[in-house]
Amino acid sequence: SVNPDLASERGAASFSVEKLTAWLDGGAEQTRIRRAVVEAIESDPVFSRENQYFQNQNERYEAAVRKAVHLQRKMHEMRWTENGPELKYIYRALSGDVAFLLHRVFMRCISVLGSDKQIAKWIPPATQYQLIGSYAQTELGHGTYLQGLETTAVFDITTQEFILNTPKISAMKWWPGDMGRSATHTVVFAQLYVHGQCYGVHPFILQIRSLQDHSLCPGITAGDIGPKMNFEHVDNGYLMLQNVRVPRENMLNKFCEVQPDGTYIKRGSPKINYFTMTTVRISLISDEAILPLMKACTIAIRYSAVRRQSKLKPGEQEAKILDYQTQQEKLLPQLAAAYAFHFINKYLQELLDRGYREIQTKNFDNLPELHAFSSGFKAMATQYCTSAVEICLRACGGHGYSLLSGLPSLYTKMLASCIYEGENTILLLQTARFLIKCFSAASAGQPVPPSVTYLSAVKAGKCPAKNKLDFLSPDIYTEAYQHAAVRLISSTAAKLQDLIQSGVKKHEAWNQCTVQLAQAAKAHCHYTTVKNFAETVQKLETEAGIQKIMKHLCDLFALHGIFSNAGVFLHDGYISGAQMDMVTASYLDLLAVVRKDAVPLVDAFDFTDKSLNSALGSYDGQVYQRLYEWAQKSPTNTQTNPAYERYLKPLLHNTLSKL
Amino acid sequence: SVNPDLASERGAASFSVEKLTAWLDGGAEQTRIRRAVVEAIESDPVFSRENQYFQNQNERYEAAVRKAVHLQRKMHEMRWTENGPELKYIYRALSGDVAFLLHRVFMRCISVLGSDKQIAKWIPPATQYQLIGSYAQTELGHGTYLQGLETTAVFDITTQEFILNTPKISAMKWWPGDMGRSATHTVVFAQLYVHGQCYGVHPFILQIRSLQDHSLCPGITAGDIGPKMNFEHVDNGYLMLQNVRVPRENMLNKFCEVQPDGTYIKRGSPKINYFTMTTVRISLISDEAILPLMKACTIAIRYSAVRRQSKLKPGEQEAKILDYQTQQEKLLPQLAAAYAFHFINKYLQELLDRGYREIQTKNFDNLPELHAFSSGFKAMATQYCTSAVEICLRACGGHGYSLLSGLPSLYTKMLASCIYEGENTILLLQTARFLIKCFSAASAGQPVPPSVTYLSAVKAGKCPAKNKLDFLSPDIYTEAYQHAAVRLISSTAAKLQDLIQSGVKKHEAWNQCTVQLAQAAKAHCHYTTVKNFAETVQKLETEAGIQKIMKHLCDLFALHGIFSNAGVFLHDGYISGAQMDMVTASYLDLLAVVRKDAVPLVDAFDFTDKSLNSALGSYDGQVYQRLYEWAQKSPTNTQTNPAYERYLKPLLHNTLSKL
Repeated sequence: SVNPDLASERGAASFSVEKLTAWLDGGAEQTRIRRAVVEAIESDPVFSRENQYFQNQNERYEAAVRKAVHLQRKMHEMRWTENGPELKYIYRALSGDVAFLLHRVFMRCISVLGSDKQIAKWIPPATQYQLIGSYAQTELGHGTYLQGLETTAVFDITTQEFILNTPKISAMKWWPGDMGRSATHTVVFAQLYVHGQCYGVHPFILQIRSLQDHSLCPGITAGDIGPKMNFEHVDNGYLMLQNVRVPRENMLNKFCEVQPDGTYIKRGSPKINYFTMTTVRISLISDEAILPLMKACTIAIRYSAVRRQSKLKPGEQEAKILDYQTQQEKLLPQLAAAYAFHFINKYLQELLDRGYREIQTKNFDNLPELHAFSSGFKAMATQYCTSAVEICLRACGGHGYSLLSGLPSLYTKMLASCIYEGENTILLLQTARFLIKCFSAASAGQPVPPSVTYLSAVKAGKCPAKNKLDFLSPDIYTEAYQHAAVRLISSTAAKLQDLIQSGVKKHEAWNQCTVQLAQAAKAHCHYTTVKNFAETVQKLETEAGIQKIMKHLCDLFALHGIFSNAGVFLHDGYISGAQMDMVTASYLDLLAVVRKDAVPLVDAFDFTDKSLNSALGSYDGQVYQRLYEWAQKSPTNTQTNPAYERYLKPLLHNTLSKL
Repeated sequence: SVNPDLASERGAASFSVEKLTAWLDGGAEQTRIRRAVVEAIESDPVFSRENQYFQNQNERYEAAVRKAVHLQRKMHEMRWTENGPELKYIYRALSGDVAFLLHRVFMRCISVLGSDKQIAKWIPPATQYQLIGSYAQTELGHGTYLQGLETTAVFDITTQEFILNTPKISAMKWWPGDMGRSATHTVVFAQLYVHGQCYGVHPFILQIRSLQDHSLCPGITAGDIGPKMNFEHVDNGYLMLQNVRVPRENMLNKFCEVQPDGTYIKRGSPKINYFTMTTVRISLISDEAILPLMKACTIAIRYSAVRRQSKLKPGEQEAKILDYQTQQEKLLPQLAAAYAFHFINKYLQELLDRGYREIQTKNFDNLPELHAFSSGFKAMATQYCTSAVEICLRACGGHGYSLLSGLPSLYTKMLASCIYEGENTILLLQTARFLIKCFSAASAGQPVPPSVTYLSAVKAGKCPAKNKLDFLSPDIYTEAYQHAAVRLISSTAAKLQDLIQSGVKKHEAWNQCTVQLAQAAKAHCHYTTVKNFAETVQKLETEAGIQKIMKHLCDLFALHGIFSNAGVFLHDGYISGAQMDMVTASYLDLLAVVRKDAVPLVDAFDFTDKSLNSALGSYDGQVYQRLYEWAQKSPTNTQTNPAYERYLKPLLHNTLSKL
């Protein structure tokens, strides 16, 4: 039975939850497909995540392989295809808890960088799992800076082979998923040497384990890199190479080739690679940041509606913690952010689709903008969502700290997204480089890409808001964000120029501006997210009830940002102190408004209990019963106490000398 | 051999590391005692934490019990006593990774709340470990709000016993340490009923497990609450009671008693309890927040001096990541904060000692101030240090995410400190209540406690700084912090009063101000921390080299706070936009200055490699070699691959049908 404290929240919804769900999904048909996938996955015991919180790294890995293998059959059985509409929901339904994800990267890498011949040779057996692939780029001493990789591939003209080596420990491949214990093959990135000349980093297909007995191939040292903060299910691995030889044909050679006589040839444009990277980054934002944040909000808000603590009014029963302003201020801005990021992600997806169509016609013009856009948003969204999940966790007090709440694993997994696929600070600085360039162009009256045209139309003046209600106008706050972004970009561009003009070398001047450049890039992304949210709400004309609550969330997201980054807006007096008080008042008012719909707003994310896998977040709100039941299943209760006979008994019986 | 990249950092130290260490310890003699304790603990293999990152919850628990038992012998062997100068260093040397900490709380509770007779009965056997105690206060449905506890203790006059019950699931005791699997006894807090009348929450001594065979006593249901984000070594437990009877003598009765006829008697003042709580909170700040932050800084800064990535100057070798401004901006303010909190903690300790002497003379005047002080600082320090450790973790990129870096466990453990011993938001609001009260008193011309006298001497005016160097004057920035704290406290007090005068009920008005009240309390704590840091530096007259670098750290801590909370200072124009640019310039300049001494500054914390237990943070900086060696020991490498025979082989051999 549903906890009455949750039932009463649902009864008071100001909109149709089902309609909002369908809208978020992109239509009722998508909702139907999604639910069918979720149902098929969750009703299959092989995919169960029930005991996940009790499993160690070996058990998690084994389960992930089992699921990956079973998934092949399931897809066949369900007639799901690699290009079908179900695909994106499958990974989500599994919560990513499955092996062989790098096998997909291995295949994509060959498809993109390999010749037709290489594709014909490798893709069919890979598709059939006659081999398991991985992707070995990162090294122990080298991450983001690709050119710094130290693995070598020396072309031996006599045998027509590349000789691969790990010249020192920092050159060891480190982190590649599926490589520690599963993969038989990998694409390894190494510095190509021909006739003693270095041609830079290139990809080589390499077998690392026997297809017969899975033993390591000659010259290969490989294993698992050990325990991590999360991703216990992935066998992130290391790989050391000692004079490992691969035939000339194993260098992926769509864009460049070493001919039999050692001649190095480049052909075509590898620009499409950037596009692939951009695609990965954006698919990541949704699965690894936004959806987990939506889950965390669902758990924390439902729990806050059933958890009661202290009295708000003397003489009454203890209050729902969701009724405390401080609790609302912790959770509701995160809820608004989940919606904001969902919408901006959708927008990015559309840009990407358009970009893809353009690339097909050899038009690469929009690649720099897409790259800058996706970099900045990857950094902003993963950073924001990670902090937001941590806030949700803390807001659930002690019970949030239990793994059974589901929140710790959401947090520890999402934290990694701030690091992989481009470390966030580096990504922000890439966006900043784009912004500075566009700002210069705009200042010189040159045309700039659509997302940054605001840089050429800088308006002077102050925020025109006269009272707190004015701050519920999207024009008012969007302008404020725009103004702040322009100010940060232009002032940093000016500082950069001043430094250079005063004789500081360019690279040093850049370094001295990076803290502010990163800040400027964030401001740009924040502005675009607010603007897009406001436009999304505006376009939503027909669904009155939904539009109203979305407008509240948009206002909340925008005002929370101003409230939390007040200095950025106050700095040049665009917003005055008195106006900031209005922002604060409107912001705090909104908390009480959104609070009323908080539970329906998370219900609309439509997560099943199994997908939340949380003792605190289930639909029925029976949190205490569930915490108690789940705890029973812990190995700390099901196994006998190892310490009793050995230590506690001798201690209590005062026979310590026997120890 | 020491990595030359670290050696060069040490060669350039601007001060004597050994002298700074001694000063931080409170004198060279303290350093000697500390090192002797650390040496004794770390040279004993029973206390080894070497394989900690590979152990599961059961193994961690068993190890913690083993260590606790062994510690008794060790203390005897080393002639360490419970009141000796070594005690505080022992827990630290063990990194808290030891069982029976709640046994100490059990004993302290009896000592404080028990009669002489009860102390005489229970303390000797507890000291001898003829029983193992725990402390059962928190319930599944009840944390901070003590009055809400639901466990009942009904006095049965006929048998002269209390009948203890868990009336419903939310009343189950949940979280108490040492209770899940170890304790034989506990102090349980329950609502006392005599003749049908409720007298509120009281403590009762209760046996829960047999001293003979450790089986649960009749009427007792108990076990472990399962996996948590950290604290795997602690058996946090649950406890359900069904008509469990304890004799009348088991209610701790120093301050109140139920007489044989059921008469309830109160005597003396339990105010000393508050003092105990305050003591616990402050000892916590050092061990659970400041020291772990110092460790995290040591790891991240040493790693950043040996990790090289990308080129700062074209044509040169890849740069140390510590040379990037963005990396400095991540780490160095955290380093400054570690020092700031160390000093404020020392100051608090002194206040506490004075408070203790006053209480001996029945002077409780300073208790409210001490309570408000300790609450606010517990909240501020744990919150700040937790965020700081997370920043350190992220700043180490992928390798920081490996458990072998030591950073994830520092983070996940510290996170709990934001919740236990008073949830931070609730603590901040307690401090705020004190501040509002004092502000009213000050406004009415009444005397206020020393820590808040600044509330009665509010000065108008603007920040007088004229250039960026002015912001290196402690008077300038301390005044700015003071001004901001006063403004936030007074404006929130005004809002509260306005609401009440406009007819809003007092409790509702309070709730509507809590977001701002928490902010005001933080500003007060931040101000006091900056002020204390500046005073500490000023007093340090003789040690020139140390004073100079401490001054830089103090400036950095202060200016980082202004830079990061710019809105608070800009709001009423106390600091202008132009002045904020000066703050930013001085702040960024300081990063480059402090960076030069960054490694010596963490060396001065004097952590051994064993105590850091980090592949990235060791003194010699051989990070890659160590990561590789440690990974070899992981069960993912030492145990055979469970998935191969079962799943991978049939898949690769295309015999899936056999599955």
